[in-house]
Amino acid sequence: MNERISHVGLRDKVRTAEEAAELIHHGDVVGFSGFTGAAYPKALPTAIAERAKAAHARGDDFAIDLYTGASTAPDCDGVLAEADAIRFRMPYQSDPTMRSKINGGSLLYADVHLSHSARQIATGVYGDIDVAVVEVTRITEDGHLIPSSGVGNNVEILDKAKKIIVEVNAWQSLELEGMADIYRVRSKVPIPITDTGDRIGATYIDIDVNKVVAVVETDAPDRNSPFTPIDECSQQIASNFLGFLEGEVEAGRLAYDQFCMQSGVGNVPNAVMAGLLDSKFENIKAYTEVIQDGMLDLIDAGKMTVASATSFSLSPDAAEVMNEKAAHYRKYIITRPLHVSNHPEVIRRMDLISSNGMIEADIYGNINSTNVTGTRVMNGIGGSGDFTRNAIASTFISPSTAKGGAISAIVPFASHIDHTEHDAMVIITEYGIADLRGLAPAERAKRVIKVAHPEYRPLLEEYVERALKGKNVHTPHDLSTALSFHQRFEETGSMKP
Amino acid sequence: MNERISHVGLRDKVRTAEEAAELIHHGDVVGFSGFTGAAYPKALPTAIAERAKAAHARGDDFAIDLYTGASTAPDCDGVLAEADAIRFRMPYQSDPTMRSKINGGSLLYADVHLSHSARQIATGVYGDIDVAVVEVTRITEDGHLIPSSGVGNNVEILDKAKKIIVEVNAWQSLELEGMADIYRVRSKVPIPITDTGDRIGATYIDIDVNKVVAVVETDAPDRNSPFTPIDECSQQIASNFLGFLEGEVEAGRLAYDQFCMQSGVGNVPNAVMAGLLDSKFENIKAYTEVIQDGMLDLIDAGKMTVASATSFSLSPDAAEVMNEKAAHYRKYIITRPLHVSNHPEVIRRMDLISSNGMIEADIYGNINSTNVTGTRVMNGIGGSGDFTRNAIASTFISPSTAKGGAISAIVPFASHIDHTEHDAMVIITEYGIADLRGLAPAERAKRVIKVAHPEYRPLLEEYVERALKGKNVHTPHDLSTALSFHQRFEETGSMKP
Repeated sequence: MNERISHVGLRDKVRTAEEAAELIHHGDVVGFSGFTGAAYPKALPTAIAERAKAAHARGDDFAIDLYTGASTAPDCDGVLAEADAIRFRMPYQSDPTMRSKINGGSLLYADVHLSHSARQIATGVYGDIDVAVVEVTRITEDGHLIPSSGVGNNVEILDKAKKIIVEVNAWQSLELEGMADIYRVRSKVPIPITDTGDRIGATYIDIDVNKVVAVVETDAPDRNSPFTPIDECSQQIASNFLGFLEGEVEAGRLAYDQFCMQSGVGNVPNAVMAGLLDSKFENIKAYTEVIQDGMLDLIDAGKMTVASATSFSLSPDAAEVMNEKAAHYRKYIITRPLHVSNHPEVIRRMDLISSNGMIEADIYGNINSTNVTGTRVMNGIGGSGDFTRNAIASTFISPSTAKGGAISAIVPFASHIDHTEHDAMVIITEYGIADLRGLAPAERAKRVIKVAHPEYRPLLEEYVERALKGKNVHTPHDLSTALSFHQRFEETGSMKP
Repeated sequence: MNERISHVGLRDKVRTAEEAAELIHHGDVVGFSGFTGAAYPKALPTAIAERAKAAHARGDDFAIDLYTGASTAPDCDGVLAEADAIRFRMPYQSDPTMRSKINGGSLLYADVHLSHSARQIATGVYGDIDVAVVEVTRITEDGHLIPSSGVGNNVEILDKAKKIIVEVNAWQSLELEGMADIYRVRSKVPIPITDTGDRIGATYIDIDVNKVVAVVETDAPDRNSPFTPIDECSQQIASNFLGFLEGEVEAGRLAYDQFCMQSGVGNVPNAVMAGLLDSKFENIKAYTEVIQDGMLDLIDAGKMTVASATSFSLSPDAAEVMNEKAAHYRKYIITRPLHVSNHPEVIRRMDLISSNGMIEADIYGNINSTNVTGTRVMNGIGGSGDFTRNAIASTFISPSTAKGGAISAIVPFASHIDHTEHDAMVIITEYGIADLRGLAPAERAKRVIKVAHPEYRPLLEEYVERALKGKNVHTPHDLSTALSFHQRFEETGSMKP
């Protein structure tokens, strides 16, 4: 008997993944748990993929619509995409196989602000969900679900689902119980969070137990990628970001014990957090999407007092540490539904400084986060819009070039725009800080070009000169060469002439 | 003795506009009241403009930085721009003279989300304000200011100002007192509005009376433009918008007594409100930026129960009616600081449906609200981003063409983007409704092209066909012709080939 399934009725519902997958049919709308490589179902995706492959081998159609919290992992999005088992996907993904299906046109993908995704699922824009498949740490006597390493859109998906399949994952620490703070956002009701660490809900998700059609036992790890070692460029960007924070302190807009961070995932954020370890900042708080290795280090060092997120994005090593010390870390860490972690109401209230990566920025501060050369989607906007728009200061951090210098992160005209000139406040590369707040576009261009790679600066300056010959010079552009960097890259493999 | 100045100390500060203007110097940062042709100072702008002209005639420099709530009027932004008295302007304008100075490069303009503008002024991103010039209906015995026909950024400007000049305008009805609800947004504190009509603050703005350096008496009307009669195209767009609302009711996402509106200003919104008069919708509420003629009609008809905004945008006739019947209308109308009227927290909580105009939409749902052919700024983003991002459903409404058909409102690639594909949910023209929610880009393109003008549809379809020949078809684009509509317009005066 599995001690993680305390509800008597649900013990009778234990099935194999293959049996449970039989309950999912072609055309179904399916909601999965899962957010950034954590808390996604470990068994059903492969079982559904096998079911799809068998159907396709018979010449039958088999494809589902899949909604999650955010990205999952190769053994979830990856196997399903490989099996052509998905017709439509939302609101975020980052899997290489899935990406190539999307860009190839065989998988439809709606790239949605995460805070919108929760609200749209809850209010029925997408209609009902046929089946929810949600990983948990355990099921209580009352049939309540204890979230595993993330919450994401689980509450909204479970509420909307006609049928529920629960995966009980023995790999997830039982001591994660108490970390989650489950709250339903309601129309006309303020979300009563007034500090990052406030708990406003329950430690479990209450569901209609009668909707549960299967319980599947698993014992498999979350699959996050290890980080690569911090390189010199990341270090320099991190140092510039810390310089920006110091500037905010100098300007009287921030105190050393007042920094509340939101941070995207990756090498540069990792370097930033390493830098914060040695900084003057204390009592650092995070109101963000995912818990990262660097935050555990900051907590261990006594520099970070609380981190609120919706999920983990930990390296395999850090995930093991978390599993061993969850009872310790849950004193400092809260996981919330993304409807709360990404809600503009709370984000704006927290006066946080956001920090996200980008594909490119144009000289006026428009940011492309999603589509390389305007057409090839990478991952998606995720929560970057939720945080950028509502941060007290929004920053975008990126190396000034990619692909060994063949791509400039600073271009004349962004080939796709996810964050507009009205949203991006500060752009930081290894070459410095472009603080665009309170500036007209023409003034911004000068600052942005200064943080471009030196090899690209003359090209960008020439563009501005050419654009200034136009009739209108509020946002100077020469439309005939606005996209020339991208066209050159498509033709020659490099943005350099 | 002016009975509108009840504070004894401030009676001694009464000065002529010319005397008061002497207190404003070259290089000063000046904050004005004013929002959409209402509540702006009526005397100081001309006096400052004269001071600037005299200085320039002497060969001296004279230019100020000017912050407001939003646009003002010809006798404010217009006269100052004409006199080259402004170096830098934020966060919004709509004056023809000012626009031409901005586009000509002699006036710097930062086009800012209105909700950001309030927060940035309050938190000191722009530093201190040297002088605030604020129009009021009257000054109370305690030195409190009673707002006139709008609030805008007055609270934040007055709080940050080192010196204050008050204009007391006898044209404004004394019975406006009680309409304003003055509340300061604070860090870490929920805004306690749970329904559109909630009053959470004071009827006056409390200031440091010692900062007042002059009180100027005026008697001049707000200068809003009259509306042009509703034409057939506007009528058809309005009818389509009402069809969209009916569809939301059918889908169970809206009830006939549940509609909360935000609406931009203009002929189409006017036609929408006229249409609502004859609709099944009752108990209509508005949580919006400005009170428009159509809202007064809806209130008069008993269809609208409450309207919350930050200012008026009334035709001269309606403004006269308001002045006569302010005591009546203040039972239904609340004017708030724009920091509250435009705050994402409250907007999202109200589950409102937003409706704003646009310059153009691209086939994937990116919206250009500000820059014609990417370079010539018209007005600015104003609050459209605040409402679009946080509405439960965001709509953009526009005729399918402009300039007698020479400009298509639907283009392959937006020449400037103010609202991204992640934000614009529904696009409505006289040709129908393109509901883009939950769709991948390729699916969206089909719907958007259907609401383009029939003359432009084949061109747009050809573009998509060409774009689909590329390697990546998630967001299909042919970069070499992406901006071809705009280039053709610049070369020939028409987007048609």
